[in-house]
Amino acid sequence: MKLYDCLRAPNPRRVRWFMAEKGIDDVEIVTLSIMGGEHRSPEYRGKAGLAHVPALELDDGTVITESVAICRYLESVYPEPNMFGRDPKETAIIEMWLRRTEMMVATPIMQGVRHSHPGMAALEAQVPEVAAYNLESVRKSLKVLDDRLAESPFIATDRVTIVDVIAVTSLDFGRMIKWRPDPERVHVNRWLDAMLARPAAAAGMTA
Amino acid sequence: MKLYDCLRAPNPRRVRWFMAEKGIDDVEIVTLSIMGGEHRSPEYRGKAGLAHVPALELDDGTVITESVAICRYLESVYPEPNMFGRDPKETAIIEMWLRRTEMMVATPIMQGVRHSHPGMAALEAQVPEVAAYNLESVRKSLKVLDDRLAESPFIATDRVTIVDVIAVTSLDFGRMIKWRPDPERVHVNRWLDAMLARPAAAAGMTA
Repeated sequence: MKLYDCLRAPNPRRVRWFMAEKGIDDVEIVTLSIMGGEHRSPEYRGKAGLAHVPALELDDGTVITESVAICRYLESVYPEPNMFGRDPKETAIIEMWLRRTEMMVATPIMQGVRHSHPGMAALEAQVPEVAAYNLESVRKSLKVLDDRLAESPFIATDRVTIVDVIAVTSLDFGRMIKWRPDPERVHVNRWLDAMLARPAAAAGMTA
Repeated sequence: MKLYDCLRAPNPRRVRWFMAEKGIDDVEIVTLSIMGGEHRSPEYRGKAGLAHVPALELDDGTVITESVAICRYLESVYPEPNMFGRDPKETAIIEMWLRRTEMMVATPIMQGVRHSHPGMAALEAQVPEVAAYNLESVRKSLKVLDDRLAESPFIATDRVTIVDVIAVTSLDFGRMIKWRPDPERVHVNRWLDAMLARPAAAAGMTA
């Protein structure tokens, strides 16, 4: 298998972090430069269908994009440690928190950064009101995660799952615009420090 | 099992449509009025954790929210017809299209409606620029679905899956603000007509 990756972008980092948690080290990594437009080359688009990074190319030539689809596939090949659920009920609870985290944290932070960071103007027709709306939205939504993390060491269950990986890579991406969780979100901040102290935190960040 | 549902909202309709495709008729349905605020009652929030509809209450009292998590759980109990994939590779391809559809169609249409329909002002602090950005975004993104539907009868594979259910319920929700796919998206429009002609199209729409 071959992973088309790029550095410091939040969605590729999800996959790299997920792989690091599982100790997966036998997937070939091909690093693309998004700012250099390599994800828009005809060759890459021919493989991935869209100019989306990351993409996982299977040995039979099938190419899968979208970070969570890639991670769920990787879990079928490298089942331990389990990060998507051990039975249908646990899988559903993890997916419930995954979707809440995508909708309430990851998507609004991504939109906030893309619509306000000067360096992103090359990728996005920026609308200041879209940035402001999304960043205010995630600020309010973090209360939900804070309440949850008051009762649980990790977001979905009592171990690290795909949900924690999505949340931490998104919150950490907010640093691009100096965005941080409010200090009164003490449980989010405690969990964030613990996640960033894991060895997997470095995955996808350096060359 | 018991499904907390409401009528005409796009996310509950996903679950009802999915159940109709599978012929599931032994789940108890409890209909809440969102406009009447029933999803915000302390009793409902105590069960669901958040004021989100739909929610599925399992026989052991566990409550799952988020439409796709509910559908994936239901698939484990009612496996046929398969709508999430028969093996890890097909599951990954379906999830890839599911996430593209959520991000490029469902979320922007939902935001477009919530930020522009006068009746939604009670649920959302409306920002006109957010509505305009999202509706323009989905208009452009539909080219991706149109190209895909030029080569395939359904979005993810050669049969109806969860992805078609998500896409059709979202596009149909756009009718609230008289939003329609552009006529030149001929493959999207052909697929939309075929989906809306299915018996399951009525699910979640009437009392």
